[in-house]
Amino acid sequence: MTASRSDKFDPRLDLLLERTIDVPVNLVWAAWTQPEHVSKWLTPAPWTVVDCEIDLRPGGVFRFVMRSPEGKDFPNVGCFLEIVPNQRLVWTDALLPGYRPSENPFFSAIITMAPQGKGTRYTALARHRDEAARKRHEEMGFHDGWGKALDQLVAHAKNM
Amino acid sequence: MTASRSDKFDPRLDLLLERTIDVPVNLVWAAWTQPEHVSKWLTPAPWTVVDCEIDLRPGGVFRFVMRSPEGKDFPNVGCFLEIVPNQRLVWTDALLPGYRPSENPFFSAIITMAPQGKGTRYTALARHRDEAARKRHEEMGFHDGWGKALDQLVAHAKNM
Repeated sequence: MTASRSDKFDPRLDLLLERTIDVPVNLVWAAWTQPEHVSKWLTPAPWTVVDCEIDLRPGGVFRFVMRSPEGKDFPNVGCFLEIVPNQRLVWTDALLPGYRPSENPFFSAIITMAPQGKGTRYTALARHRDEAARKRHEEMGFHDGWGKALDQLVAHAKNM
Repeated sequence: MTASRSDKFDPRLDLLLERTIDVPVNLVWAAWTQPEHVSKWLTPAPWTVVDCEIDLRPGGVFRFVMRSPEGKDFPNVGCFLEIVPNQRLVWTDALLPGYRPSENPFFSAIITMAPQGKGTRYTALARHRDEAARKRHEEMGFHDGWGKALDQLVAHAKNM
């Protein structure tokens, strides 16, 4: 399932982070799927995650609250779509838990991981409905932000 | 998976059709998942389905074109979310194939079927993002329309 044709990167509408990291796939999977780990790395510092809820099944909740350096909270809620342990995790904010369409859809995320040596080949694909949304996500700092978050995941995983 | 807690009916936001039909589950499943069958029953006459495309996997396309009695075509495109043969089919128009958020999300559908005697206990749950969307769907004739379509499914299945 890691190379289904629906994962093809569309530079007009998608954003992609692709990197080989020095952490085995099982720890990357744990970092993405257990709230106590997610809270440690998902938002690039000085932003923090102050709450996280995960129901790891298709249609199950993925909720987290990001706190800005000024102390303002930004809740996010979506649902999981595909769960293939140590390989593939898909979630979206276009659907709430139980697949209910959401008020403010922004993007779907397709995270893949595969063993590479002792580490992991990691990709994070963010899909948007139009160019404006892709551009907005890019201007919010997708590449820098998701890159820094991934650095944090690696640092955290080394202490897991 | 047929009774996950996320299927709970919310009368404020959901519409539900529930019926026991005189057709075995495997034919109900075939009627929902094979384009040549879908075209025969999905829209209540005199509406017709003039095209249908199905890629039966999570993230795969579910596309069909409804033609009005006046000859106007209404294309629909969405993607499948859950596929449990002879039990459960979930799809949404809030996501396009490959999970890309869509421009005009309206509802997600959770179809369940279970053997009952020689027939099938059938439910179709339509989930909306707000009361206005639920109401609009109701006024478009959800109960009458989906009920007539199900009558057509039964009639068609008896000749399959």
